[in-house]
Amino acid sequence: MSTSLKSSPVMARDAFTTAVITATISKAKVAELEKVFSKVYNIGDGLNPDLVIPDHILREADVWYTNWIGIPGVTSLDQVPNTKAVQLSSAGANKFLDSRLMASEEARKRIKVCNASGIHVVSIPQYIVANVINVYMSMPMQILAARQEARWDGYNMPHHRSLIGKTVGLLGYGHIAREAARLFKAFNCEIIAANSTGKRGADIGYVVPGTGDMQGSIPSEMYSTSDESSFNEFLSRSEILVASLPSTPNTEWLLTKERLARLPVDAVFVNVGRGDLVKSSDLLEALDREDGLSGAVLDVTDPEPLPQGHPLFTHPKVIVTPHTSSHIAKYFDLGADLLIKQAEQIRQGKPLLNVVDPEKGY
Amino acid sequence: MSTSLKSSPVMARDAFTTAVITATISKAKVAELEKVFSKVYNIGDGLNPDLVIPDHILREADVWYTNWIGIPGVTSLDQVPNTKAVQLSSAGANKFLDSRLMASEEARKRIKVCNASGIHVVSIPQYIVANVINVYMSMPMQILAARQEARWDGYNMPHHRSLIGKTVGLLGYGHIAREAARLFKAFNCEIIAANSTGKRGADIGYVVPGTGDMQGSIPSEMYSTSDESSFNEFLSRSEILVASLPSTPNTEWLLTKERLARLPVDAVFVNVGRGDLVKSSDLLEALDREDGLSGAVLDVTDPEPLPQGHPLFTHPKVIVTPHTSSHIAKYFDLGADLLIKQAEQIRQGKPLLNVVDPEKGY
Repeated sequence: MSTSLKSSPVMARDAFTTAVITATISKAKVAELEKVFSKVYNIGDGLNPDLVIPDHILREADVWYTNWIGIPGVTSLDQVPNTKAVQLSSAGANKFLDSRLMASEEARKRIKVCNASGIHVVSIPQYIVANVINVYMSMPMQILAARQEARWDGYNMPHHRSLIGKTVGLLGYGHIAREAARLFKAFNCEIIAANSTGKRGADIGYVVPGTGDMQGSIPSEMYSTSDESSFNEFLSRSEILVASLPSTPNTEWLLTKERLARLPVDAVFVNVGRGDLVKSSDLLEALDREDGLSGAVLDVTDPEPLPQGHPLFTHPKVIVTPHTSSHIAKYFDLGADLLIKQAEQIRQGKPLLNVVDPEKGY
Repeated sequence: MSTSLKSSPVMARDAFTTAVITATISKAKVAELEKVFSKVYNIGDGLNPDLVIPDHILREADVWYTNWIGIPGVTSLDQVPNTKAVQLSSAGANKFLDSRLMASEEARKRIKVCNASGIHVVSIPQYIVANVINVYMSMPMQILAARQEARWDGYNMPHHRSLIGKTVGLLGYGHIAREAARLFKAFNCEIIAANSTGKRGADIGYVVPGTGDMQGSIPSEMYSTSDESSFNEFLSRSEILVASLPSTPNTEWLLTKERLARLPVDAVFVNVGRGDLVKSSDLLEALDREDGLSGAVLDVTDPEPLPQGHPLFTHPKVIVTPHTSSHIAKYFDLGADLLIKQAEQIRQGKPLLNVVDPEKGY
């Protein structure tokens, strides 16, 4: 029974055989794809709007790996008669869904559009961990002393703190938070998390192998942001608060001045989600209060971009980066891994991952 | 049989009941000690050479927790008739072994001197991991841009690298390297290690609970620094090379220019051991070579301290810290944990940990 699955006509009909790649990936990754698909067309620069893809390739293609703009130059479903799925390299799918090709009901029904949600775990969680340690070990101060004064001065630095035994509160528990949870756990931190339901859940969508918290079992306690007393308890325990929330009507300015004040004395706040979670003025107040934060790590800001000369850039307790935590080299290779995973899903008779609902756009 | 061990007269005679603390520890830690010992004398500042400890305390004490200078003001064994052991807060024991009290054969025989080797894992391994990520994510450059120019500039930063899949070579496999191995493993790195024998071994001495690699099982391969071809293969695989070696005649200038050249292109080198492992001129050459290092993280240097204005301070690929990776807050509480562990060893009929050989001094 189980062995027949792979060769059943149903699966064979759905299986991907010809992949067309318009995102720029490494030679090594092309070679990996060639082991998975019968035919791989690797077409250079898919961000070039004038790129003309030969008709025979358009006709053969059953699956694509593209940049966020989707299939370059194609405006009608007839041009791509065998295309069943498009794997995008981006988390957002709107650009492609709004294209002429995808305007018809028929196209939206036949072509499954998959986003690349989940691949950012290779970069953002390591950023989070390193920068909490940077705050704990005064690394900005040490780096500045060396670079500006070229002077050996070990004894005027504050004492370091260790991650061991600290409680990390994850505000939002998606892919990035789950991988941060796994890493902080390795550092012997206690992990707690808060989401809108207060309930544990399995991860859905693509997970980079070896990362994350598939079953949602790592946090010792889950809290609810919808329940004021639960949210307050979560905040009061979070010695390290890591926010990785999207921007929605529910999350906008969620972290008020009053809520920031509930964090333990000397807490560290990290924001890798969206800048409109907390007002910069409230954050500055929490940093300057005597019983307030001992540090903040901001890859997203209010407003964003932060205007030149904004006090958060130079505040001694703050590390600001210009939304670079996800700027990874060989980014497009990561999406190709996801395409390989998708082929495996199909072969095993499982559904595609990260399929976008065309009506919702995510 | 095994249950009688605890209550055997031999053990009872050896058990510690009265602990005298001259290192400065937190109230919470004193309370923990009071659960373990029948009596705890907490005597403030043991670094004060004029400190006079009352005679009755000297007489009662069977175990001490002290700074590296040992028992303040005591010069004769008669003053401390019940003292069986001294737990130092330092890795080095020479200061106390060279004291008048410890000069006699009798004192060296009766008083076991234990160092605090192993407690630095709470600080140095997190420094190593964070600073490799700092190199991988151009954090010094990002911090300097923010602090000096207060300007949002995400697109001129180099792309980040991820730790996932990287090979970490640990040169020396003691306490610090074992904990670094465990942490890098969590980041999905491959771990290899080199020591003078090329053999795996269990950790000896004190291990902070939940840290390290007790059995030496984490590295996928062990290499020998005594075998040139084995050492060369180790170097050629080490995309991240972490040195945590002591300074000995065998390690002095061990990492020659030729050996540095065997590292993979764009390798990152971290030194938290001793500065005389590698000449600064050789390191600068490796950093400036086109196929050389992409970064170096130095908490120890040649010479040390690094003279003001030395090019390593300001080299764009280098992070220099002034031997601060172990400067942890509540440092002395960590040694108190070790004292608690020692009491447990005795109660369980096991030998004391980290006992120093008075002849060797370590």
